[in-house]
Order: sequence, then C-alpha cells, then structure tokens
Amino acid sequence: MPISPENHVLISEVGPRDGLQSVPRTMATAHKLRWITALYDAGLREIEVGSFVPASYLPQMADTAEMVKHATTLPGLTVMALVPNRRGAQRALEAGVHKLSLPVSASAAHSLANVRKTREEMIEEVRAIAALRRHLAPDVGVEVGISTAFGCTLQGHVPEDEVMWLAEQCMEAGADEAGLSDTAGYANPAQVRRLFRRLRAEIGNKAGAAHMHNTRGLGLANCLAAYEEGVRTFDASLGGLGGCPYAPGASGNVVTEDLVFMFEAMGVNTGVDLPRLFAARVPLHAGLPDEPLYGMTPEAGLPKNFVRGSQHA
Amino acid sequence: MPISPENHVLISEVGPRDGLQSVPRTMATAHKLRWITALYDAGLREIEVGSFVPASYLPQMADTAEMVKHATTLPGLTVMALVPNRRGAQRALEAGVHKLSLPVSASAAHSLANVRKTREEMIEEVRAIAALRRHLAPDVGVEVGISTAFGCTLQGHVPEDEVMWLAEQCMEAGADEAGLSDTAGYANPAQVRRLFRRLRAEIGNKAGAAHMHNTRGLGLANCLAAYEEGVRTFDASLGGLGGCPYAPGASGNVVTEDLVFMFEAMGVNTGVDLPRLFAARVPLHAGLPDEPLYGMTPEAGLPKNFVRGSQHA
Repeated sequence: MPISPENHVLISEVGPRDGLQSVPRTMATAHKLRWITALYDAGLREIEVGSFVPASYLPQMADTAEMVKHATTLPGLTVMALVPNRRGAQRALEAGVHKLSLPVSASAAHSLANVRKTREEMIEEVRAIAALRRHLAPDVGVEVGISTAFGCTLQGHVPEDEVMWLAEQCMEAGADEAGLSDTAGYANPAQVRRLFRRLRAEIGNKAGAAHMHNTRGLGLANCLAAYEEGVRTFDASLGGLGGCPYAPGASGNVVTEDLVFMFEAMGVNTGVDLPRLFAARVPLHAGLPDEPLYGMTPEAGLPKNFVRGSQHA
Repeated sequence: MPISPENHVLISEVGPRDGLQSVPRTMATAHKLRWITALYDAGLREIEVGSFVPASYLPQMADTAEMVKHATTLPGLTVMALVPNRRGAQRALEAGVHKLSLPVSASAAHSLANVRKTREEMIEEVRAIAALRRHLAPDVGVEVGISTAFGCTLQGHVPEDEVMWLAEQCMEAGADEAGLSDTAGYANPAQVRRLFRRLRAEIGNKAGAAHMHNTRGLGLANCLAAYEEGVRTFDASLGGLGGCPYAPGASGNVVTEDLVFMFEAMGVNTGVDLPRLFAARVPLHAGLPDEPLYGMTPEAGLPKNFVRGSQHA
C-alpha cells in the first residue's frame, strides 16, 4: 500500500478498462481519448486505460496502446493497463505503461473461466511478468488484483486461507502489490475488514487496492470498511460502468462519483473536483449514447452549500 | 437505545408510512393490510404503519387507524405511527399504537416547511404528547426523530450543537428516545459517527434509531458507521419507497432488502428472512403497480450458497 497521510486516498479509475470491456459496443478511439482527458482534468491521477488482450477476444480494447500513448502525456498521471499474461505484459511495457495490473483469481473455477489458467499457472505468469519487467522497465509497477477474493458466482465460498496463500505466492513471484477484488459483489463490510487486516498481516505494506462492486448495494459500505482498515487506494468506475463479464449476474463497479463524494464529504482528500468529475460523464455518454450511466450524487447534485469535510459543528 | 446484544439489530420498517406518504397515489386499504402482513411474515418486528394527520392533508394516510387495528393483532410486533401534533397523538393512542414517532426538525427552515411550527413550538408539542401518553397509555413509547440532523435542503448546514440542544430539550419534555434522521440525504459516515457519539454522550441510552436516506448512494455506508458507533435500530423502507416530500430532491429511503442483506452477511442478526422479505415486494407492487421499486439485492439475488455470517475462512 503506498504510504499516504491518514486523510488522503487514491481513487484509481478503471472505467476505460473494466467498464468498456463489459460493454458489447466499442467506444470510438477519439471519444475514449476525450474521456480519459476529462477524467484527468477532474483530478484523477491513476487510470487503468485498457487491457492488452487479443483484439479478436475483446475488440473494445484494440486501441489500448493508443490510450497509453495519450495518457502518458498527462503530467503526474499513473497509467495502468491490465495484462492477463506475459504476451500482454510485453505489449504493455512496449507501449510505455507505468503500472501493470494482473488479475489472479482466488477461485479455482473463476480462474479457468476468466483467463483459462489454473491459479498455479497464473502464479507462474506473475513470475514471468515480474522478470520481464525487471529486464525491460524496472520502474514499472506490477500489481496483482486478487479477483473473487470475497466469493465467486461459480463456486460460491472462497476460503480466506486460499486468498492469503495466493497473495503470498504472488509476492514471492515478484509482484509489488496485491489488492483484493469483490468480482462477484458478494463482499460484506465485516469480511472486507477481516480480509484486508489479514492481507496486511501477511504482506505488510504491499497490500494494495480495494476493488469493490455495488452488485448488492454494499459497494460504498465495503469501501468504508476497507478505509477503516487502512486501505488508501480504491478502484471505481465513472458512471458505475462495467463489472466482470465472466461472472454472470455480477455487474456494477463502485461509482466513482459517489465514492469521491463520500470521501470528500468525510474530509478525506481525493484530489478530485466533483463538478469536473460529473462533467467527465459527458464524453463518456457521447461515446456510448445507449449505455446507462449510474451514480446517485450526479443525479441528486451536491448538498446545498457543500464544502468538503464540512458539516462540522 | 434498547439494550440488545452486539450482534443483533432491529430493522424498523417505515415503508407503510414514510414510503406511502411520498407516493401521490393512494394504496388501497386491502393491499396495505396484505403488505403489512407480508412484512411481519418476513420477520420484521417494528413497523411504522402510517401517520395520524388530517386526511385532507395526506389522503394516503386516511386509513391509518385500520392499519393499527390490524397490525396490533400480529404477535410480538411493535406498531408505530407518526404523529405531528397532540391531536394526532390522541388519535394514535385511541387507535392502540405501541409507539408514537414524532418528527422534530433540527433545521429551523425545515421545521416551518414540514410541520408549520418553530422548533420551540415542536418541543412544546413533545411535552404535551408525553403528558397525554402518561395519562392515557403509560406503556406507549414516545420516540422523537430529529429530522434534517445532518443538513437541510433549505438552509444547508445544520449546526451540530443545535441538534444536541434539540435532543436534550425533547428528553427534558418527556420523550423516551431521540434518533437522528438524514432527511436530505446529506450525511456522510464521519458525520454519522460524530453525531451519534455526541448524542449518546448527551442522552445516554435514550439515543434512538438511525434513519438514513440513500439520496447520494451513502445510505448503507452511513448505517454501517452508525452500527459501529453502537446504534442498534435502523429505519428502512421496502423497495426504497419514499423519502421526504417537503425536502425537494431528497428521496430514497435506505432499502430494507439491501440493509438486511448487509447485516445478515456480516453475521449481525436482524431476525428477518431474506427470501420472505423479497416476497413482501409482491403485495407492495400489487397495490402500487406504477411505482418503481428499488433494491439491488432482490435484483441480483443472494450470493451462491449464501449463509448468514458466512464467508468465513
């Protein structure tokens, strides 16, 4: 976990990857570029701009290298891309990303369904990717996102010991950080606290982001629980776009707008400007006019005379 | 706050009052009765069945006495009704309610808009109602709900000192409990923790329910914060029906289904059976077919192999 003051969090915007890959229609490159710029202009300083997967597999992600090229021109932005394997990692490193994100499923069933590999095979991918990074671009970060960490639509319960085993194995294989993802939207706040506490006990400050879904309405409550456990990086998606296409019935990333509002209202600094964040919905909607956008704060508007961390005595 | 074990909470269903009074159409009496029975059958043991206000003012609430008559036949159910003044309290006590709920606004502007009285005048109503209760039905509870406790759409910020002053005044006037209501949907978890902590410091175990709205998506996060501060009674509305008709733009009670799911998943006992709770949406929908029902858990379904308090290691 990157060291950050108590009252600062990093919102990692995953919409351009996790959101767009869940939408059957492809957003035109020009619209994507405008959207990423708008997210940056709102103050977001980590964006997962796409994934390096075969275009035949996810045509929505065919222009990820272009996204990276553009995003790396924006000062102070950490440009992430998801890579499912070493081939994707090679392409991502060549494109110039700052950080690689690797999905590793804690659920054996989900691992096979999502990346067609066993968990043990994925650990070897992590090892190969970490080695590649060491040779090609030692400054690039490698973050593992442990998906289905809180349960799985295919196998149901995922033993916590297996989640911890996987996190340790990934660290041992050379990853820099491991976060926990509620791919299926099964997590509850007590479980979130328990798992992140264990994760920190196991891998210390290499414990990474909380990636929560809002499938059953608990997204923000789970983020709050993770925050109270010391997590300071949170994945979210503008307009709640996306989810996981391979976990049936599990849609709904945490909405960036509502998450930022929660933290800012609490007086926790996100660095994000809420009106500009709402404005970033415009290029998203322009590029995907038929896609529903979620988010209650943009709809309701900010509270009257809202000042961040206000509502004090 | 009623004494309850650490892992038990009371979900107080307010849909038949707070929900229905926000809907312009009137739900037929027979449908309402079936809905209340279904809520009871799901395990809910406190229901606000209506309000005693002039029928000319809120025709949706004209049959509240009939609701009380029916609900008081259900064993173990605490039957509440909202009363805005002593005349309403007289009718409620005659009808046989177990508990009176009095809305008292912390915001001076909202008080005038909502009940056409100043806060000081409302404290006198509380005093008169508590006296009436003492004479007519000493076993009946009197709970004040301090509305706009976290901010107000009319005046914006509501000073926390005024909220505490009001709570103390209501206790001094003879109320049994005072809870805090986020009428405008402005609350954030840090504020919820701060205010309930102060409330308990001021009035001890007379601190009552958390009544949260989901207007900006923070409803469950705020309930979690209140729970962690020791609150054990939570208002919620099936299908998220309702809000406050006099706070423009402020709609959206916390959804009972999602709240119960959160607590049950955490291993906190609500006494409510989730599939039966989802089934209670049927008579609600039958009685108000055009009204949208919210709730993500009923839509997504329960997690695979869900067991309450499960997802343990």
